[in-house]
Amino acid sequence: MLRLKGKKIDIEAGEHTVLLNNIDAERLGVRSQSRVRIDNKGSTASAIVETSNTLVDEGEIGLLEKVFEEVKAKEGDVLKIVTAGRPESIEHIKEKLEGKELSEHAINEIIQDITDYKLSDIELSAYVCGVYSKGMTNREIKDLIWAMIKTGDSIEFDKNPVFDHHSIGGVPGNKITLLIVPIVAAAGMMIPKTSSRAISSAGGTADIFEVLADVTLNTDEIKRIAEEVGGTIAWGGGVNLAPSDDIIIRAEYPLMIDPYPQVLASVLSKKKATGADYLVMDIPVGPNTKVDNMEAGRRYARDFVSLGEEIGIEVRCALSYGGQPVGVAVGPAAEAREALMALEGKEVPTSLIEKSTALAGMVLEQGGVREGKGKEEAKRILESGEALAKMKEIIEAQRGDLEVTSEDIRLGEFTKDVLACDEGYVGSIHNSDIIKIVRSAGAPHDNGAGLILNKKKGDKVEVDEVLFTIFSEHEKKLDEAYKLAKHLDPFDIEGMILESHPEFKTV
Amino acid sequence: MLRLKGKKIDIEAGEHTVLLNNIDAERLGVRSQSRVRIDNKGSTASAIVETSNTLVDEGEIGLLEKVFEEVKAKEGDVLKIVTAGRPESIEHIKEKLEGKELSEHAINEIIQDITDYKLSDIELSAYVCGVYSKGMTNREIKDLIWAMIKTGDSIEFDKNPVFDHHSIGGVPGNKITLLIVPIVAAAGMMIPKTSSRAISSAGGTADIFEVLADVTLNTDEIKRIAEEVGGTIAWGGGVNLAPSDDIIIRAEYPLMIDPYPQVLASVLSKKKATGADYLVMDIPVGPNTKVDNMEAGRRYARDFVSLGEEIGIEVRCALSYGGQPVGVAVGPAAEAREALMALEGKEVPTSLIEKSTALAGMVLEQGGVREGKGKEEAKRILESGEALAKMKEIIEAQRGDLEVTSEDIRLGEFTKDVLACDEGYVGSIHNSDIIKIVRSAGAPHDNGAGLILNKKKGDKVEVDEVLFTIFSEHEKKLDEAYKLAKHLDPFDIEGMILESHPEFKTV
Repeated sequence: MLRLKGKKIDIEAGEHTVLLNNIDAERLGVRSQSRVRIDNKGSTASAIVETSNTLVDEGEIGLLEKVFEEVKAKEGDVLKIVTAGRPESIEHIKEKLEGKELSEHAINEIIQDITDYKLSDIELSAYVCGVYSKGMTNREIKDLIWAMIKTGDSIEFDKNPVFDHHSIGGVPGNKITLLIVPIVAAAGMMIPKTSSRAISSAGGTADIFEVLADVTLNTDEIKRIAEEVGGTIAWGGGVNLAPSDDIIIRAEYPLMIDPYPQVLASVLSKKKATGADYLVMDIPVGPNTKVDNMEAGRRYARDFVSLGEEIGIEVRCALSYGGQPVGVAVGPAAEAREALMALEGKEVPTSLIEKSTALAGMVLEQGGVREGKGKEEAKRILESGEALAKMKEIIEAQRGDLEVTSEDIRLGEFTKDVLACDEGYVGSIHNSDIIKIVRSAGAPHDNGAGLILNKKKGDKVEVDEVLFTIFSEHEKKLDEAYKLAKHLDPFDIEGMILESHPEFKTV
Repeated sequence: MLRLKGKKIDIEAGEHTVLLNNIDAERLGVRSQSRVRIDNKGSTASAIVETSNTLVDEGEIGLLEKVFEEVKAKEGDVLKIVTAGRPESIEHIKEKLEGKELSEHAINEIIQDITDYKLSDIELSAYVCGVYSKGMTNREIKDLIWAMIKTGDSIEFDKNPVFDHHSIGGVPGNKITLLIVPIVAAAGMMIPKTSSRAISSAGGTADIFEVLADVTLNTDEIKRIAEEVGGTIAWGGGVNLAPSDDIIIRAEYPLMIDPYPQVLASVLSKKKATGADYLVMDIPVGPNTKVDNMEAGRRYARDFVSLGEEIGIEVRCALSYGGQPVGVAVGPAAEAREALMALEGKEVPTSLIEKSTALAGMVLEQGGVREGKGKEEAKRILESGEALAKMKEIIEAQRGDLEVTSEDIRLGEFTKDVLACDEGYVGSIHNSDIIKIVRSAGAPHDNGAGLILNKKKGDKVEVDEVLFTIFSEHEKKLDEAYKLAKHLDPFDIEGMILESHPEFKTV
């Protein structure tokens, strides 16, 4: 054990890292990538060691910001440092990579160590890769859900029941939550929605709603706003609900992988911790989305329903059309604007209204609206302006601008049109290419990055007509996104069939 | 593109990391974990970005030591920084995690990006996990071998042929290289041996020989010493021979996994780059070793021979007994001492002599000694003192102490005996537990950490007799290792069978 003076090191990094002077590292018997435990009068944290000769002097320990905060240190506090062994959970991760079924105990250990930041990036990545490559049984997933809930907070509402909805994503432009939450809340039901940031998409719901309001709410705020206003849209990572989820996402994000069991556990653990009694799941199915065929979509639906039952949530699932982007806007600011336009009654693609009201209707039916009448009621609430009024209340409650309209929202200042090279009809639009282009333009981090489709599936296209417009906050990224767009060519334009020979006439 | 003043940041880390001030990061459009390319008048490097407000000022870029060296920077040099996209190789890594066979092109891209430090720890770990969990075909492994060779240097000897030997390890105490190399070199054959440091073992050959001499040789030194003295024992990571290997090991090490295809490629790429024409492989087989059954051992042997043939190396393999540690010493200094004792003609376990001379004999036979007579000749060279004399030459050539004897070698000053709780015979010794104990005592990093077995398989043991003694350089690590030893209990002591009832008499 060593006593060292704490010093904040101002580096943003995902791992919990501390810097030791080489002399102290030697004294403690640790090296780069060793693990230590830090104790500041009872506030403790685990961290991975890196060493330095000059950034920290002998007798000092450098704590990266997150560790500094976790042990509630003040500059110069004397901290106790002890070496920590290799966590047993790494052996369980290895077992998963070998295709073994993990025990409840093993899963608890892995999730506890992830939550405590005991795993390095290399080890965290191995967990994600193990689950991705070898999968999990439903028994393991159930244990994973409970492990993820137990290692965080839960919200206890004074009112009930709690309604919720979630889309597993994969379809660009899926801004439906920004319509569903105000519709359901306007119906007098309580829907405290938490959302992830983008993992492999161009913008998660949290990224999109952040354009309009603060999504970093604490659990007291979520409880208060949901109980007072009826609805919230909060970033799930901003609260301590199933906190392992956001740490795991940190490894999924650069790899752009969403392991199946982790998707189920991520959604259901967050929902359970948020107190959900009822849940409507949107499962978009289409080529080049997360779920590319109906069979896979049904598998998700079955597993969501049965796992929901096991943990006490009544889940209903909708397999939705995921064959092209929802609406025309993709990217955080673009999607926030399109959602507001829909609430304001301005012209938006019918598909966006249809999908949003269908899903909101399912929630309304779980809440007592007569079966088969939910969608109709959702449309009424939307068209009457009740949903817009409720949205304004939610935005205000989340410290956003009450007066905001769709016209106030700015997209990236650098724009470029992508033109058609052929004439014909749009046969298909490749979702995954659209996402890559928007990410390349800077999304989700730059919220003004995005694109607006000028053509959708089935539309007629002339040569040199605009297919879509890319927006970016940086000229360099715009160029990259444009180059990528030309390279990927996300639109299939099917040729006009000419009646060249009467015997080959085709419709 | 930005021009920023370079500043060395004194942190040891595995990843190629640079620190940007948040203002410059914003300007460049990058964030934590983004990738950039750095250009210092033609010397370039790729790196992963972290951001800071205070460690680097606006207009500065902080380069961790390895990056600083790679771009040949001097303090204050103005460097050109451009953003770099997400490497395509990550998609190929994902394909491997999904179980797909990778094309030659995909494998080349992955290995090139690893060698160029374009992959973050998370991505590197995903590669290792993909290969571990999904394996590779022999076609993929062959492509992997060539990719690993092409991305590094090769040694061209003026003399030939070049002999080599290698053990795939997994058995603690396997210090045979320190006997084989001097025996073969003393026979007038050339054996430029490169070795890894420990991956999942208590000490690699490079760690062990480093106790006696400098193992960080450049390719010119390896060539010169091998041609002049006949033998060398160099650290493979100290030269640029298949350099991706040591980067990959950085992810394998904390996970303690050695993916099968990576083991084959690691050995054969290094051997080919070192110019080997002939290779004798030692494949220890035993419970709790890397290869735990004969069938798996034969699979390795077949694959080494056939892959060797494809790349132009004549490989012979020996499946050796790996059921317990080789000799009695485990850990870098302890093993160096035991090997010296064997060369000095002092008493060491017969098994160590038998194994070393059998394998050295196979090399001698590849070099022309009559088939079946190799081991005998190896023994003669060892017993005559010719091998010891050659070892001294090698040590001297590698800047070690020519006068060193086994008595000069110091083990860790903190020691503790582990005693038997039962009487009986040693039924088995668990290799993997022995390794864990020695690693817990500080090996391979602390070279004095290790253990000396007082009992081996088949030995009779009384209650409170010493089974083994643990050595450590740190009191705290000794305690941890001792605790772990008591917990793991690596010896199975089989009870004495008493003739309690005549009808149950047993031998």
